[in-house]
Amino acid sequence: MYQKVALIGLGLIASSMARAMREHGLVGTITGHARSAETRETALEIGLVDSVHDTAAEAVKGADLVVLCVPVGAMGVIAAEIAPHLASGATVTDVGSVKRAVIDAVGPHMPEGVHFIPGHPLAGTEQSGPRAGFATLFTNRWWLFTPLENTDPEALARLKSLVEAMGANTDDMPPDHHDLVLAVVSHTPHLIAYTMVGVADHLRRVTHEEVIKYSATGFRDFTRIAASDPVMWRDVFLTNKEATLDILGRFTEELFMLQRAIRMGDGEVLEDYFSRTRAIRRGIIEAGQDTDAPDFGRGPKKDA
Amino acid sequence: MYQKVALIGLGLIASSMARAMREHGLVGTITGHARSAETRETALEIGLVDSVHDTAAEAVKGADLVVLCVPVGAMGVIAAEIAPHLASGATVTDVGSVKRAVIDAVGPHMPEGVHFIPGHPLAGTEQSGPRAGFATLFTNRWWLFTPLENTDPEALARLKSLVEAMGANTDDMPPDHHDLVLAVVSHTPHLIAYTMVGVADHLRRVTHEEVIKYSATGFRDFTRIAASDPVMWRDVFLTNKEATLDILGRFTEELFMLQRAIRMGDGEVLEDYFSRTRAIRRGIIEAGQDTDAPDFGRGPKKDA
Repeated sequence: MYQKVALIGLGLIASSMARAMREHGLVGTITGHARSAETRETALEIGLVDSVHDTAAEAVKGADLVVLCVPVGAMGVIAAEIAPHLASGATVTDVGSVKRAVIDAVGPHMPEGVHFIPGHPLAGTEQSGPRAGFATLFTNRWWLFTPLENTDPEALARLKSLVEAMGANTDDMPPDHHDLVLAVVSHTPHLIAYTMVGVADHLRRVTHEEVIKYSATGFRDFTRIAASDPVMWRDVFLTNKEATLDILGRFTEELFMLQRAIRMGDGEVLEDYFSRTRAIRRGIIEAGQDTDAPDFGRGPKKDA
Repeated sequence: MYQKVALIGLGLIASSMARAMREHGLVGTITGHARSAETRETALEIGLVDSVHDTAAEAVKGADLVVLCVPVGAMGVIAAEIAPHLASGATVTDVGSVKRAVIDAVGPHMPEGVHFIPGHPLAGTEQSGPRAGFATLFTNRWWLFTPLENTDPEALARLKSLVEAMGANTDDMPPDHHDLVLAVVSHTPHLIAYTMVGVADHLRRVTHEEVIKYSATGFRDFTRIAASDPVMWRDVFLTNKEATLDILGRFTEELFMLQRAIRMGDGEVLEDYFSRTRAIRRGIIEAGQDTDAPDFGRGPKKDA
């Protein structure tokens, strides 16, 4: 589908893309660049890329598709660096978790004749680095695009075909709406999980050993989310500030309402609130976005 | 190990105990009681119990072990009801998630010659009811006991042998410390998850369909926790009020600190905070309390 794909940044998403593209025969050559020499060596050693380059500028030469897989805060600098070296007619996309900030940072650098199509695969795990990727990461996951007013429909269709061939479903969305939706389903939950794990980490009256031993009661699920890449998440919050603060405000408002119900002993408010949340879980399972196995199917299985 | 075990309440924990006790041949007869006629019928139909009884008083007659598996708020009423019918020398235990409140509610009713040993298996799933149980639920999970000053060591040892034979690890803990630890690793995380799911449910600018489709970005893990039994959790918060409010206070303090860092654009604070939380995840995996498979091993697997 593309002759030469350049992956800038070689972490979980890029390495999963490389594996998926190869497995489905979607690409001729894959070139890559990562800031760290160790990552570049690993990527070459495990065969993710056909060649690695010390600079992003080198990596993108002659590529008909360039994928920016770096933390959101690094997108602008990379865009400025690669701009003079992009082939005419090439498509540039990104996989950042925030879209407005990426458009503002990358857009102005893109030369005439290059198609810039912002994107975001809603896929990932708590692991990072070039060894963390796997070909099926995008299977049945949504890959969102936030096309610009002047986006070429053919270039968009071609890019969508690529990610659909990797197993993803695709959707279009205005960038600001994307950033609000993600603040709800991803960014705020991550901040909350990081905070809860941080609280347990700081507390002196409950030991680390106790937190770890007894984590299966709910806490361990928060630790998985809070084990995600720190730099990537720092950039998400710095660049999706407005929507995250908006949703955080809603969250603390609701939390205070429930906190007050606990303090006042108002069981009716609590039971009513806890009863309504089951429907969303059912919807997610019916939509095929999570397993219906109890406890995510971890550990000893149900025998019935 | 026990001739006759009476299970009062026939939900996830009781039904898992019944299956585990039978599978390992740990019990002669199992009797049961549940408030709902439908639950009683189901329990009999699927063979969880040898007999069901319309009242808890009937169910405990002649039992050498009575296990209270009802929501924490119902323990006191049940204790008062069964007290005159308990066999001399019998052990009464419970599986409530809060221990101080259960001791205060149940303790005063226990007659001379009956061993009351408060307990709490740190095991469960988001599913409830008699059909939700399975024999391996307690495998490698902790079962905590909060013995009283006058607890008979032999009765405690016998009860521990039973739950260890069901696959659990056992530990003793003072009740107030238990309630604080659980507020950290279980109660506060549950309240937070319920709140986040509630926020998404209320928001009009992001549709339910969007929340469900794009939930794999973190949110779906919160929905699993927030699908837990509403009445059980209502009672947990009403009866572990002090410790939960204490930890919630810490949580909002930390959350406001991070919120301020986002507002001020202080990336260093965020990155530093997000970097420290990975160590706890590693500890949990090393302690065998969670899988190290990416994304809990859900869905398409890593192929490397």
